[in-house]
Amino acid sequence: MRSAILNLEDSKIREVANAGLGRRDVLAFWFGESDEVTPDFIREAAIASIREGETFYSHNYGEPGLRAAIAAYTSRLHGPVDAARIAVTSGGVSALMVAVQALVDPGDEVVAVTPVWPNLTAQPAILGAKVRCVPLAPREDGAWALDLQALLDAITPATRLLVINAPNNPTGWSASRAEQQALLDHCRATGTWILADEVYERLYYEPSPNGCAPSFLDIATAEDRVVVVHSFSKSFLMTGWRMGWLVLPTAVAPHVGKLIEFNTSCASVFTQRAAQVAIERTDEVTPRVVRHLKACRDTLVGRLRQLPGVTVAPSPGGMYAFFRIQGFPDSLDLAKRLVAEAGLGLAPGNAFGPEGQGWLRWCFASREISRLEDGITRLKRWLLAQRHQG
Amino acid sequence: MRSAILNLEDSKIREVANAGLGRRDVLAFWFGESDEVTPDFIREAAIASIREGETFYSHNYGEPGLRAAIAAYTSRLHGPVDAARIAVTSGGVSALMVAVQALVDPGDEVVAVTPVWPNLTAQPAILGAKVRCVPLAPREDGAWALDLQALLDAITPATRLLVINAPNNPTGWSASRAEQQALLDHCRATGTWILADEVYERLYYEPSPNGCAPSFLDIATAEDRVVVVHSFSKSFLMTGWRMGWLVLPTAVAPHVGKLIEFNTSCASVFTQRAAQVAIERTDEVTPRVVRHLKACRDTLVGRLRQLPGVTVAPSPGGMYAFFRIQGFPDSLDLAKRLVAEAGLGLAPGNAFGPEGQGWLRWCFASREISRLEDGITRLKRWLLAQRHQG
Repeated sequence: MRSAILNLEDSKIREVANAGLGRRDVLAFWFGESDEVTPDFIREAAIASIREGETFYSHNYGEPGLRAAIAAYTSRLHGPVDAARIAVTSGGVSALMVAVQALVDPGDEVVAVTPVWPNLTAQPAILGAKVRCVPLAPREDGAWALDLQALLDAITPATRLLVINAPNNPTGWSASRAEQQALLDHCRATGTWILADEVYERLYYEPSPNGCAPSFLDIATAEDRVVVVHSFSKSFLMTGWRMGWLVLPTAVAPHVGKLIEFNTSCASVFTQRAAQVAIERTDEVTPRVVRHLKACRDTLVGRLRQLPGVTVAPSPGGMYAFFRIQGFPDSLDLAKRLVAEAGLGLAPGNAFGPEGQGWLRWCFASREISRLEDGITRLKRWLLAQRHQG
Repeated sequence: MRSAILNLEDSKIREVANAGLGRRDVLAFWFGESDEVTPDFIREAAIASIREGETFYSHNYGEPGLRAAIAAYTSRLHGPVDAARIAVTSGGVSALMVAVQALVDPGDEVVAVTPVWPNLTAQPAILGAKVRCVPLAPREDGAWALDLQALLDAITPATRLLVINAPNNPTGWSASRAEQQALLDHCRATGTWILADEVYERLYYEPSPNGCAPSFLDIATAEDRVVVVHSFSKSFLMTGWRMGWLVLPTAVAPHVGKLIEFNTSCASVFTQRAAQVAIERTDEVTPRVVRHLKACRDTLVGRLRQLPGVTVAPSPGGMYAFFRIQGFPDSLDLAKRLVAEAGLGLAPGNAFGPEGQGWLRWCFASREISRLEDGITRLKRWLLAQRHQG
């Protein structure tokens, strides 16, 4: 096997989850997924399609009806986007992989903002690129921020690609419009591509005109070197369906069908039918999901703040509380102990990069808010026991 | 964009299909897919799963039940294979991509046997490898054969990977046991990996003890550098489901989950439920499919042979008749004319490599054999008109 692949880190989240294998009493908040089943009307669209016998290959770019629906949805949020710029993919991660394959040659320099979902830095490494990480940093209050100047300084004419995920998994950091504009201007000058993972754009809790986090689509033209990645997983409660999409520059779109062919060929038609009703009827799902997630976030962050030694700020976007507990500097060790000793499943912050060391990620996408409270109770009890022992 | 991606050829099959866009009267045999809907009991398993709310992430390697079912199926056909060596992927093409990512570094030398499904040579090119093609060649009677010595000579200690698809798409060529053994022995000596695309193994029309084409799994150990790719598409009438799997060496299997995570994360649970009943109840599907395909093949090849100037041999495996017509040396031109002038959709042979120039691929996986006969009638009438004009 390639050493580049052997050197890719195994998921530390899986390592923690494995520590809880066979234990039915673990309250798990480690994965980035709601525990709410996909809404009925979305599931019924897939069932109808399967019943009708839509079991054949689809177009590489996706069914025309779905591409049109995605283009309409995107246009409503960010201004006109032609359906020819949309490519349907088998999940957001496949969209990212296709984009990286399109843009990154072996040996290329890629800059990534971290901590971040590890897939974003692994993909360029698989292609043989050199990945340079520019860290976000926590402020005193636990909110994470970008050192914009450091990021601009890191992006030179030698930089092929900037990978940026905002709202950010795991920290919740969201790029401001001004930050995005400065990055776009700078990357136009250096000739650097921007790969923007905006899958959490709708899960945004700050005031905004379109209900979304600031997006590169708001400011980039169809000719800019900007590729935006989206997913049905989070805003439509469809993690298990493996559906995502790319918004591509006009000149790039005609070449991406080949890459989809060589990666997955196409998405299932019946899955696309489900995605199409989901996006056409987004108003029946997403606003409710976002309202509920905000209540989850506020409850969880409020309770966490009451615990001794905890630093946490409410995330402006995403579905994670990212926090640290004084006296526990080793995330992985702490996460494993919490599984084993408290029956509480959290993701270790250093799974997302070394900057996350000492932090924990708690996915607050819980159908029942009481489940979050049960988790807090477990954490509190465990912390108290530590103080007593200490 | 990368020039490596720009240089990847657009599909010539799509080019021909585009020439027929908007025409409802085209009899299309260009894609590698049966026109029969997936059997009811398979579809119902997916529907039950969706109804039950299985809409969440799955394991990177696939659901344990499905992996066990695939291992049992593989063991029945090829001798004991442990479930730990099975990885479920989002289609055979994703299995191939994951394998290539695991094995091929930028600059590596890859040897491929051609003509072949273009994805097999495109994937190493995406990874930045150098692909060297060793051609099959047609005999006088139209059957294609391997020059084993030429292939052995091409594989040196500098060869990282041999990519071999048998039964072969498009020619129908199948590797003999002796050829496979010679290749395995040689690759053991050179340290070369073998990536065997065996998705057509069940669609085999020669006598054999297990009803399968010869497989590298019959002769390789769990420690050999052999990766075998499979798909649910052909033997189970499940093209549109995007389900495949890898059989991996024991030492490689633990590292492939990461790559699945970074490519597609996982396959949908409900799709896996359908795949599981399909493979558990293969005896209700595959033997019938194979019997029918053999009848299709025999009808089509018999009729083709009656046409003046046609050279064709019955394929030992797969679901394609690969044939040429005297006086028509340009496949792409011929295929486009057949669409436009005869309403007959075939794939141009040079879509699969330059060796296929002058040849046409006809997918004979037709639910109604009369559809094949209608196609023959169209071809015959068109050929007659050409002779009259000529």
